[in-house]
Amino acid sequence: MAKNFPTRAENYAQWYNDLVIKADLAENSAVRGCMVIKPYGFAIWEKMQAALDKMFKDTGHSNAYFPIFIPKSCFSKEASHVEGFAKECAVVTHYRLKNSPDGKGVIVDEDAKLEEELIIRPTSETIIWDTYKNWIRSYRDLPILINQWANVVRWEMRTRLFVRTTEFLWQEGHTAHATKEEAFEETLTILNLYADFAKNWMALPVIKGLKTASERFAGALDTFAIEALMQDGKALQSGTSHFLGQNFAKAFDVKFLSRENQLEYVWATSWGVSTRLMGALIMAHSDDKGLVLPPKLAPIQVVMVPVFKDNEQLGMISEQVIPIKNKLEESGISVKYDDRDTYKPGWKFAEYEFKGVPVRLTIGPRDIENGTVEVARRDTLQKFIISISDITQHIPVLLDEIQQSLYNRSLEYRAQHTYRVETWEEFLDVIENKGGFAYAHWDGTSETEEMIKEKTKATVRIIPLDNPKEEGTCIYSGKPSSERVLFARAY
Amino acid sequence: MAKNFPTRAENYAQWYNDLVIKADLAENSAVRGCMVIKPYGFAIWEKMQAALDKMFKDTGHSNAYFPIFIPKSCFSKEASHVEGFAKECAVVTHYRLKNSPDGKGVIVDEDAKLEEELIIRPTSETIIWDTYKNWIRSYRDLPILINQWANVVRWEMRTRLFVRTTEFLWQEGHTAHATKEEAFEETLTILNLYADFAKNWMALPVIKGLKTASERFAGALDTFAIEALMQDGKALQSGTSHFLGQNFAKAFDVKFLSRENQLEYVWATSWGVSTRLMGALIMAHSDDKGLVLPPKLAPIQVVMVPVFKDNEQLGMISEQVIPIKNKLEESGISVKYDDRDTYKPGWKFAEYEFKGVPVRLTIGPRDIENGTVEVARRDTLQKFIISISDITQHIPVLLDEIQQSLYNRSLEYRAQHTYRVETWEEFLDVIENKGGFAYAHWDGTSETEEMIKEKTKATVRIIPLDNPKEEGTCIYSGKPSSERVLFARAY
Repeated sequence: MAKNFPTRAENYAQWYNDLVIKADLAENSAVRGCMVIKPYGFAIWEKMQAALDKMFKDTGHSNAYFPIFIPKSCFSKEASHVEGFAKECAVVTHYRLKNSPDGKGVIVDEDAKLEEELIIRPTSETIIWDTYKNWIRSYRDLPILINQWANVVRWEMRTRLFVRTTEFLWQEGHTAHATKEEAFEETLTILNLYADFAKNWMALPVIKGLKTASERFAGALDTFAIEALMQDGKALQSGTSHFLGQNFAKAFDVKFLSRENQLEYVWATSWGVSTRLMGALIMAHSDDKGLVLPPKLAPIQVVMVPVFKDNEQLGMISEQVIPIKNKLEESGISVKYDDRDTYKPGWKFAEYEFKGVPVRLTIGPRDIENGTVEVARRDTLQKFIISISDITQHIPVLLDEIQQSLYNRSLEYRAQHTYRVETWEEFLDVIENKGGFAYAHWDGTSETEEMIKEKTKATVRIIPLDNPKEEGTCIYSGKPSSERVLFARAY
Repeated sequence: MAKNFPTRAENYAQWYNDLVIKADLAENSAVRGCMVIKPYGFAIWEKMQAALDKMFKDTGHSNAYFPIFIPKSCFSKEASHVEGFAKECAVVTHYRLKNSPDGKGVIVDEDAKLEEELIIRPTSETIIWDTYKNWIRSYRDLPILINQWANVVRWEMRTRLFVRTTEFLWQEGHTAHATKEEAFEETLTILNLYADFAKNWMALPVIKGLKTASERFAGALDTFAIEALMQDGKALQSGTSHFLGQNFAKAFDVKFLSRENQLEYVWATSWGVSTRLMGALIMAHSDDKGLVLPPKLAPIQVVMVPVFKDNEQLGMISEQVIPIKNKLEESGISVKYDDRDTYKPGWKFAEYEFKGVPVRLTIGPRDIENGTVEVARRDTLQKFIISISDITQHIPVLLDEIQQSLYNRSLEYRAQHTYRVETWEEFLDVIENKGGFAYAHWDGTSETEEMIKEKTKATVRIIPLDNPKEEGTCIYSGKPSSERVLFARAY
């Protein structure tokens, strides 16, 4: 099934693209830059959604739904916001097709031109604050803690499955608060929630920090993000949480009567993660044999493959296997028993290995005689024999172990590819030869940031949270700096 | 909170609209015809989604995601399909905005005109069959049983919250099969699934049947639907399941190699329910005091309201109430304990009554002395006192009873508003005066159907499944008929 699958070393970009397509995760569609998320890929996304959704609800958030369309005038109300998104907006101008006069198919009906164009949401701050305006009168109406799961569209010129697509799926939280402090706290609560999710579900270590002005969300005062390191030494921004101050409240005139009976502008946050996380997940753990998935997000956690010559043998095996399957499923583990006779065991081994099923159990007639099962781990590719009576006890422990082991492996990889650099030469060596994160001094100006980017394609990914103060000089300009920031090339 | 709330008898349409808005379910947005689904309304929709999603998966379906955009040429490939949807399509023509030369805001950038316009999906058959084309080679690739949860856009001129909106949320199933029989069976499996969901979750009795040719889905050979009766005597189509034959396979050239090694066109179905179900749910059960919700779909199933003068009393009450709350929640019941001192009990009673919380428990100091609780049922508005020690046993039983009782009430209402009519005069009396379903003979022609619609606004809702054959004469044309069909005015 995975013929001509390149190794990471040969061609990392091709390896990723082929992996996504051949593992049935997603594919390109007939629409430029838009992907089809296939059932196997979508099942992983559903697991991510379920986990995140619970975390949002446990922290007091509710889901709602706002229109996909934003009238152009509404979209334009916050100046820096429209400035940031104007160049990548899909615009609806008409609402009807008609038969072409030449009888050759349908054309846009020019009589059905909209008075005002509608923007397809690239993000929903404007339409949501236009709505919040009517919901907020007094401090009693605050906070508003709303999330929505939705599709959004940003017209991207260069796309890559999951990582950057014209349409993508995401969640966007939009909260309204009575005080600056509360809004700021919310921004960090969500940043921490995202980091916890990456760690505990995706087995992905991330670094939390503040974006520089040039990478800030259009309309935000502060943008915080989590950054992960991929196996090619490039960073991937995996989630952002924005402190919006009173910008949107001012643009949409959203005031509330405070406890002290004063009319004040409302404070805001917004935050989101998207199907981009799928890209991070795939790139972080997978290897030259295909997908590797952390058990907590694997649609199939355990696959059982019987090895049999005829129906009689299969019957004997099934008799042993099915009660084990049921028992594992009762404890919440998703198990597939692949007893098809249209495919040979070898084909199945390759298939599930490529698709990243964390644990494979193989049982043949010899195993039935000996009361054993062969266990294969996808992450380490190790195989071992255990007693069939130990299976139901062993599997949950093994799944936890794999989850933890993937996290540790990623953490180790990151440690090996994180460098403290003091000079421009060292910096170039990391960015251009070694790959990875470079902790370096930077003079804090956008000009220097831009020059470094131009020369090396590396950007300041983040000013890490709780960054130790340390006197130094900027690797590029030689000017004084009070802390190191995290540089890398990025997706 | 629900000031000037009209009764159903006074103005049913206004009653519905006010109910949706004042119960915080949804509201109109800044975009014509598009709604904002508020958290309380969305929580009901999420419960519907979860139940349906499980039913789909239990019957072998998987979720996936296809692009929101459909290139015009792709959209036009199936002739009757494009004919049916062309007049209500939102069309994307540009992908960028720019600053207006006069410095007054942003305008569409004419340099960023798409070579081919993109249609925002009103339904996804075309983009999906364009994709399936690449997935299907042989009978081994079949069946494909895929569902997607998505937003769709149909440019509606007259909208009503939930019932008919320009953008709405739905699920759309799209399946591909090797044989006609299997596809047809799938169509009916889903029709039955929808009817079961309506009955068991929404407490809504529906009639299953076949649509006439004029009401058929554009591109289908047969459209089946479930129809429910609202309290104003109008029908509401609540879900449809289409047998598409080989129409889309032919339009997109999707063939497979059969077991017999023959190249054949693939057979197809599609089916969907939408946020329209919210409209059905609201209209079916609610009353002049506000929303009435079946417990299985209520975001809050039980609300507890303490009656207290001071913090000491509240403390005593909470001590009794919180263990009960915890116990109920352990058994999967969603409970809200509203101990706010910013609102009086009377205000809270009105609030939860209006929002349709199925059960309210009230506890005051006297109850603490007596070891009692007052229980109020939202559906019947009955109140009674029970011993506090019986609460955790009693509530689950009561919730089941309310669920069942709402279904019975709807069933009874429908029975009282279903008429067998023999003559045109009787027909007019039902449609124009009594309201409800009229079982009548019809000659089976689209001309007669159209004339009846023109004269009475009533349409053939459905040819009921397993309809008994019965000789008769058409109420309008007097021509012979072999079975009765179901007429009503409809949403």
